[in-house]
Amino acid sequence: MSEVYAARRERLRERCGSGGAALVSRPANVRYLAGAAPDGAVLLVGRTEDVLLCPRPPGEETGPGRPDEGLATRVLDTPGGDAAVAGAGQAVAQAAEFLAVEEHHLTVTRHRALASVAPRLRLTDLARGVEQLRLVKDEEEISCLRIAAEIADQALGELLESILVGRTERHLALELERRLVDHGADGPAFPTSVATGPHSGRGGHRPTDRRVEEGDFLSVCLGASYRGYRSEIGRTFVIGTSPADWQIELYDVVFAAQRAGREALVPGTAYRDVDRAARHVLDAAGYTEGLAPRTGHGVGLEIDEDPQLAPAAMGKLDACVPVTVEPGVHLPGRGGVRIDDTLVVRCEADGGPELLTITTKELLAL
Amino acid sequence: MSEVYAARRERLRERCGSGGAALVSRPANVRYLAGAAPDGAVLLVGRTEDVLLCPRPPGEETGPGRPDEGLATRVLDTPGGDAAVAGAGQAVAQAAEFLAVEEHHLTVTRHRALASVAPRLRLTDLARGVEQLRLVKDEEEISCLRIAAEIADQALGELLESILVGRTERHLALELERRLVDHGADGPAFPTSVATGPHSGRGGHRPTDRRVEEGDFLSVCLGASYRGYRSEIGRTFVIGTSPADWQIELYDVVFAAQRAGREALVPGTAYRDVDRAARHVLDAAGYTEGLAPRTGHGVGLEIDEDPQLAPAAMGKLDACVPVTVEPGVHLPGRGGVRIDDTLVVRCEADGGPELLTITTKELLAL
Repeated sequence: MSEVYAARRERLRERCGSGGAALVSRPANVRYLAGAAPDGAVLLVGRTEDVLLCPRPPGEETGPGRPDEGLATRVLDTPGGDAAVAGAGQAVAQAAEFLAVEEHHLTVTRHRALASVAPRLRLTDLARGVEQLRLVKDEEEISCLRIAAEIADQALGELLESILVGRTERHLALELERRLVDHGADGPAFPTSVATGPHSGRGGHRPTDRRVEEGDFLSVCLGASYRGYRSEIGRTFVIGTSPADWQIELYDVVFAAQRAGREALVPGTAYRDVDRAARHVLDAAGYTEGLAPRTGHGVGLEIDEDPQLAPAAMGKLDACVPVTVEPGVHLPGRGGVRIDDTLVVRCEADGGPELLTITTKELLAL
Repeated sequence: MSEVYAARRERLRERCGSGGAALVSRPANVRYLAGAAPDGAVLLVGRTEDVLLCPRPPGEETGPGRPDEGLATRVLDTPGGDAAVAGAGQAVAQAAEFLAVEEHHLTVTRHRALASVAPRLRLTDLARGVEQLRLVKDEEEISCLRIAAEIADQALGELLESILVGRTERHLALELERRLVDHGADGPAFPTSVATGPHSGRGGHRPTDRRVEEGDFLSVCLGASYRGYRSEIGRTFVIGTSPADWQIELYDVVFAAQRAGREALVPGTAYRDVDRAARHVLDAAGYTEGLAPRTGHGVGLEIDEDPQLAPAAMGKLDACVPVTVEPGVHLPGRGGVRIDDTLVVRCEADGGPELLTITTKELLAL
């Protein structure tokens, strides 16, 4: 694996040009380039040498994964010390004409510390350069996502076999998270959402002590993290023998919107057109109020990455970009439906979009 | 409760002086002053008006707790939009001469956006002003911490009654986290650490698939979050009928160090002297290598707050400051001992330090 990380750093080095060095501080970016991101670690990509700066002894309080063995690691004595990072930054970057930093992540305090320790070093903005490198995934990354999706499918499948009526949202969410780990996840990809009755269909609902009741819609959204890669799946079920008419009607609309979004996942399609494809179905059925500001988003080392599938998003889909498609409708006081898959954009010759989360999207009555 | 948050904002306003407004972005600080911190929300404390700026509709993807009802809440259309925050900041702060921002939390990008949208507004550094207000807790906060500690004691107590040999660190950690929630926690205060055999005694050890074996030391560190307030408890046990001599000896030393640290928790004592009291016991017994850089830290809305109980820390303890005391020794390849309590500093007339985590510190053989 060491070569993979070295190759990624090389791509960043090319981006910086011959005179520059880069200081990468955003944890997912550090992990992408170094193989691991111990708490508070920053990565210096120098002109010739790369160094991972860790504020504490490695092995203690580190995140999952191990730093690339081919990478020099320097331990800083002062935990989280801005000055220490700045000093080490100066040492590595001294041969460089400028140091590109992640202004969207670096704090003003740390930026000042860098400027004062190395006053002759010009600080520039790396902007979202590493995020852009992360957009298109290699097959190794996609296979981690595939496993992360499989784990989430398994956890969800087991939940569906258990008795649900009378259990609280909070307990169902905990049980799902335990099952994720049982099936090999590092942990949940994000806080598991379980929403019953009037809560159903709300994006990002935090589980409460409300219990599942007969006749409820039940929306579940969960994901696994596997070797750092994060999947997402969301399904809505109905509790009891048969769904009410309004439930069937609402489900069909959201299902059609989600399918339209999935079918729009073709390389070259504008992000906003994917959003429009799904949103149009909801609009046409009269659900225009309170829709989420986006239909989906990229996933990878973070659960919410570029691209954004939203009306104002700029850019076009590439092959090998994993995204979620997750339209939903929530009717205040009644509940709603949300259907969410993780897919990888593939060209038609490769069979079209690859669905990673394969749990059925029929409206199941549990 | 609304008055409590308003009073806290008033104290911050006094700190800013008559010409200033403050933009609070660090989530725990927002929560302290506003009662809740929806994802990405920032709080503007103006000269006369305070506004909570939320990037998404409130009620969706918000953290636990509700914003103070007496507080104006403005929803920003662009999720996480730096420009939108800057614009709103300008509107509220326009009557002010300067706007104090949290440079240790604010990103360079957002700082630039503020400066460009409101070029005539002088930006200053609020520094850790809100963190300083948070240092001494009121009795309401301490009672939340007391409940958070009680929940952690209960979860730990139940674990001790179960069979441990053969179970993995990862599963024991998950079970503890489930029990925390069963007993009313919002969730774990931090990732639960379970360390067996050679892993035992390491601070912040991430659970692995190693199974508990006869003769192991087992170190457990967990905490509950209750209404946002976070407790911490750490204990070390021995697995099997009777501990080995080296285990008893090591345990006695760490126990004595931890007691010395606890007994040093008197208002007016320098932070570094608490650290020294505990560290001296370990030093004197010959354990000088690989000790943690600190003996304890403050707890509250974050699990790791001011003060730091460390050799170079500046400042003195006040009454009503909750801290951990958590010395440990780890012998590479063999394991070690860590004992960790959450206590509140109280003056002698009030009975001395109040121990919140009351699980026994005898060396139990399980």
